[in-house]
Amino acid sequence: MRVLILGGDGYLGWPTAMRFSARGHEVSVVDNFSRRTWHERHGTDSLTPILDLEERISAWQEVSGKEIRSFVGAIEDASFLEDVIVETKPEAVIHYGEQPSAPYSMASREQAVETQYTNVIGTLNLLFFLRDHAPDCHLVKLGTMGEYGTPNIDIEEGFIEIEHKGRKDTLPFPKMPGSLYHLSKVHDSHNIQFACRIWGLRSTDLNQGVVYGIETDETAQDERLCTRFDYDEWFGTVLNRFCVQAVVGHALTVYGKGGQTRGFLNIRDTLQCVELAVENPADAGEYRVFNQFTEQFSVSELAELVQRSAAEVGFEIDIDNVENPRVESEEHYYNPVHTKLLDLGLKPSYLGDELVRSMLKTIERHRGRVIDSAIDPRTQWKPGAPAAAR
Amino acid sequence: MRVLILGGDGYLGWPTAMRFSARGHEVSVVDNFSRRTWHERHGTDSLTPILDLEERISAWQEVSGKEIRSFVGAIEDASFLEDVIVETKPEAVIHYGEQPSAPYSMASREQAVETQYTNVIGTLNLLFFLRDHAPDCHLVKLGTMGEYGTPNIDIEEGFIEIEHKGRKDTLPFPKMPGSLYHLSKVHDSHNIQFACRIWGLRSTDLNQGVVYGIETDETAQDERLCTRFDYDEWFGTVLNRFCVQAVVGHALTVYGKGGQTRGFLNIRDTLQCVELAVENPADAGEYRVFNQFTEQFSVSELAELVQRSAAEVGFEIDIDNVENPRVESEEHYYNPVHTKLLDLGLKPSYLGDELVRSMLKTIERHRGRVIDSAIDPRTQWKPGAPAAAR
Repeated sequence: MRVLILGGDGYLGWPTAMRFSARGHEVSVVDNFSRRTWHERHGTDSLTPILDLEERISAWQEVSGKEIRSFVGAIEDASFLEDVIVETKPEAVIHYGEQPSAPYSMASREQAVETQYTNVIGTLNLLFFLRDHAPDCHLVKLGTMGEYGTPNIDIEEGFIEIEHKGRKDTLPFPKMPGSLYHLSKVHDSHNIQFACRIWGLRSTDLNQGVVYGIETDETAQDERLCTRFDYDEWFGTVLNRFCVQAVVGHALTVYGKGGQTRGFLNIRDTLQCVELAVENPADAGEYRVFNQFTEQFSVSELAELVQRSAAEVGFEIDIDNVENPRVESEEHYYNPVHTKLLDLGLKPSYLGDELVRSMLKTIERHRGRVIDSAIDPRTQWKPGAPAAAR
Repeated sequence: MRVLILGGDGYLGWPTAMRFSARGHEVSVVDNFSRRTWHERHGTDSLTPILDLEERISAWQEVSGKEIRSFVGAIEDASFLEDVIVETKPEAVIHYGEQPSAPYSMASREQAVETQYTNVIGTLNLLFFLRDHAPDCHLVKLGTMGEYGTPNIDIEEGFIEIEHKGRKDTLPFPKMPGSLYHLSKVHDSHNIQFACRIWGLRSTDLNQGVVYGIETDETAQDERLCTRFDYDEWFGTVLNRFCVQAVVGHALTVYGKGGQTRGFLNIRDTLQCVELAVENPADAGEYRVFNQFTEQFSVSELAELVQRSAAEVGFEIDIDNVENPRVESEEHYYNPVHTKLLDLGLKPSYLGDELVRSMLKTIERHRGRVIDSAIDPRTQWKPGAPAAAR
């Protein structure tokens, strides 16, 4: 199958590209290296040393004998994106090509506008070019569980049947996103759903939980194939950050009470889920939503897991309930449905001490690369609010 | 009160500016004349001959003795908008400053992107500058009833209590908008709600129905104060279009079966509603939604009303069920709640033969200005679909 991966140089995009290439698909990737640029500007970096895209692609060819095509540019650049769609004629587009950080989007007006512009306008361009040049293509879009927020009812997969004043309808699940980044994903979801309904496009919106982990089958084959691993306040996800904090002897930064509960999944399961979506495409005109995570944890539970696993390998580490830089419920009901991917055959890799210990080991090898100043949270949801206590 | 009106040169914005000025408020208007530009590019124009903004403002000063300040620029231009907010220190912002046409947004990728960029990014800029420079200001934002679409349940005012699997929550009413323009308003609603929740801003989102009418108390005082009146396929609203069609002897263009039902209101009631919202501001941190319309009609009912009223004044006119250029339900349930503005004291001007006859009379005076080629619908929701039969 001709598979086009937007954001193919990223944490998830690069392992996804190799996975589909390994399976014999004809893979093209698009990236404009914005994550690398954002890190450079912010004085932060991936923990793992990563090669340039072209070097990675050469290393992959050497290891696997397979070719990955690359296109360097931004999806907000319409003429660039149109050329890519026309040239690659994708049968599936896997769309990771967005600004993915909530705190990044909250740090300033400029970054908020950049986030919503990149994500919403980029995806809108894509919808038009699929309509015009690849109308049968299956768009697999990475959304986020954060689109839903934390309502006081069970979260369904995208849609909910509502009975109201004696009548019934199945409607999009109401969204209460927690950042301007999460809002951009809600906007995308509405636009994509519309494009399916009006133009007959087909799309699967993967409302993904928080991803953790470093390794996939393909990255493990050669050091040069490793993916990026972020641990800074902007781009690091919570479990990855805690593991780095444990290794460098930084108290684990639990925001507020730590009762914030979210869905989580291993990076290996991201690849599995995306593959299941691509192998079982949505129908023409169908917009479907899968809640993509395997387990749910509170932030405090994760901190305790990391503390325990770290102790087993000799790191004694504290948990520090720092002042929460975000505005969010620290104790709330949370029970999202997530059966659709299991029904398609997802076999989860559950989180446990062993996985955490293996992450700690990998992180230890790169300990010299850790930039200490990148760890503490500084971006405030409410500007003027006091910086989080250290 | 210091009132800032975004889009103050428009169909609703200009009469609103005069109304607040007449009431003794300190009024400033912002406009970048994009509506005038879009018309010029498209070879269309307002039926009523309208003065330039500066000339209007002078005429208003001559008639009323009151001053209106003007700022020419786009709200997407952050440094321009920031200067305006800092300089005017508004206590209320009335925000009409968006691209308001569904077919305009559906005509091309460029126009879709322009619409979502102008509306979403412009409003996002505004939210940041209110947060930073006028946090107590009440944002009165014009949304649209079209955000809801036509669900099979009663439409509530912004929020709905949902009972689900034995639990309950009050959540944003699910949206099923019918165009990329309507989507931009849904995106705005989510962004504004977030800004109220996180930053403590206060906002009233007026989900307005379809406006008709030409005259308000202030425009009637002097020919030079008249507001624009659009009848073309992009910017004309349905009743206004039908009235012009009747005068020029064009069969009334009912799209499809004509069972499409929407909320409607007189332009005089728009001013009343906006005034009621400004006089009764939302609380700090509150995001509230009013469904702003006074009556609901199907498109066929409106066509019959215009046909009948036109016949009374000597215009014999046909109704033509043209092929629907839009993708929408032509027969559907529709029962939106709209009590909040009535509770605040709204006294509706209901639609009847007399109002239609008076509109026909005004239109007749300007009959020589009608551009025939602007009348038929050409913009297709699905490109490649056959143009609407004439």
